[in-house]
Amino acid sequence: MSLPSTLLENAVDQLATLPGIGRRTAMRLALDLLRRDQHEVARFSEAIRKMRDEVRFCDTCCNISDEPRCAICRDPSRDPSTICVVEDIRDVIAIENTRQFKGHYHVLGGVISPMDGIGPDDLNTQELMERMTSGEVKEVILALGTTLEGDTTGFYLNRKLAEHGLVVSMLARGLSVGGDLAQADELTLGRSIADRKPYEQSVKR
Amino acid sequence: MSLPSTLLENAVDQLATLPGIGRRTAMRLALDLLRRDQHEVARFSEAIRKMRDEVRFCDTCCNISDEPRCAICRDPSRDPSTICVVEDIRDVIAIENTRQFKGHYHVLGGVISPMDGIGPDDLNTQELMERMTSGEVKEVILALGTTLEGDTTGFYLNRKLAEHGLVVSMLARGLSVGGDLAQADELTLGRSIADRKPYEQSVKR
Repeated sequence: MSLPSTLLENAVDQLATLPGIGRRTAMRLALDLLRRDQHEVARFSEAIRKMRDEVRFCDTCCNISDEPRCAICRDPSRDPSTICVVEDIRDVIAIENTRQFKGHYHVLGGVISPMDGIGPDDLNTQELMERMTSGEVKEVILALGTTLEGDTTGFYLNRKLAEHGLVVSMLARGLSVGGDLAQADELTLGRSIADRKPYEQSVKR
Repeated sequence: MSLPSTLLENAVDQLATLPGIGRRTAMRLALDLLRRDQHEVARFSEAIRKMRDEVRFCDTCCNISDEPRCAICRDPSRDPSTICVVEDIRDVIAIENTRQFKGHYHVLGGVISPMDGIGPDDLNTQELMERMTSGEVKEVILALGTTLEGDTTGFYLNRKLAEHGLVVSMLARGLSVGGDLAQADELTLGRSIADRKPYEQSVKR
């Protein structure tokens, strides 16, 4: 049965375009919104439009920021000679939460994915290369997801960055901390054997 | 770490008000919207605002409808002497999909839930009672969820409807069709024993 209202149908169609939201969930969300106060829904709708229309990106690292330069790039206590390349702002937040990294970031805004028609030029790769020209950068850490797309992106960037004569590193892959050997998947366990480190070095920290 | 943009923060806060959407998912949805074309996001935002501002409800059954009377209430082939009372439009769609019901509906717009501060006056109960005054209605089917709230609502409506001298029925409770006995929960299995029917009557259809 089709919906008895095109207004509801449109809203459900739009909500169902969100990742991970099917039509059934979209319907539940639309009905929830319908039961709310009119002003509340206006605020909801406006917050989304305004975000898309007015959000800015840091001129240097391309992270989301309300100002031309983000708080991390402006922070004089951070080391600009190390740049950590990530997919999006969620990765910046995750790494900041570890308190293990005091360098700068570069946010690609996605990963290379031929299946979705996303190539290097759709990402902030040009901006990354421009940051290499100053000679200030000594190391680039590729902190990308351990997926096919993440690996492809890392491969591409490593080749481009190699010309600049700097250290290109990537995050260690291995067992999760607090994880069980038997529970680890084969690929991860295999990788943790291949990448094993001298005991002294491993327990240092 | 708090978000580096109040615009993003507002959008995430708003998306996280949706039922079943936590802050982590809200962030994923916001980043997905951010990567889209500006016009596309304007359409998204507008469809939601417009739905809330302009959607109408059927004058008779209170279902969502673009016209003053919904398609079901306007359909002359349907029987107006039987009214099926449901919580919301999703239930209408579910029952229509069974093709077992040819009467009219009445959409309450929710169920009584003291915990959420929803009483009978917050639902379309007054409109239901008004439909009883014509004397045309012979049976009211309470097709409410089998939850505490659904039961409370059914109890309340049954008492109100009793005055009108008509048949008030409710949907059968029992085993799922295609379900295993051992997999059914205790309450449902117990109910299916208490409500057992003569074999001849059960296999009729």
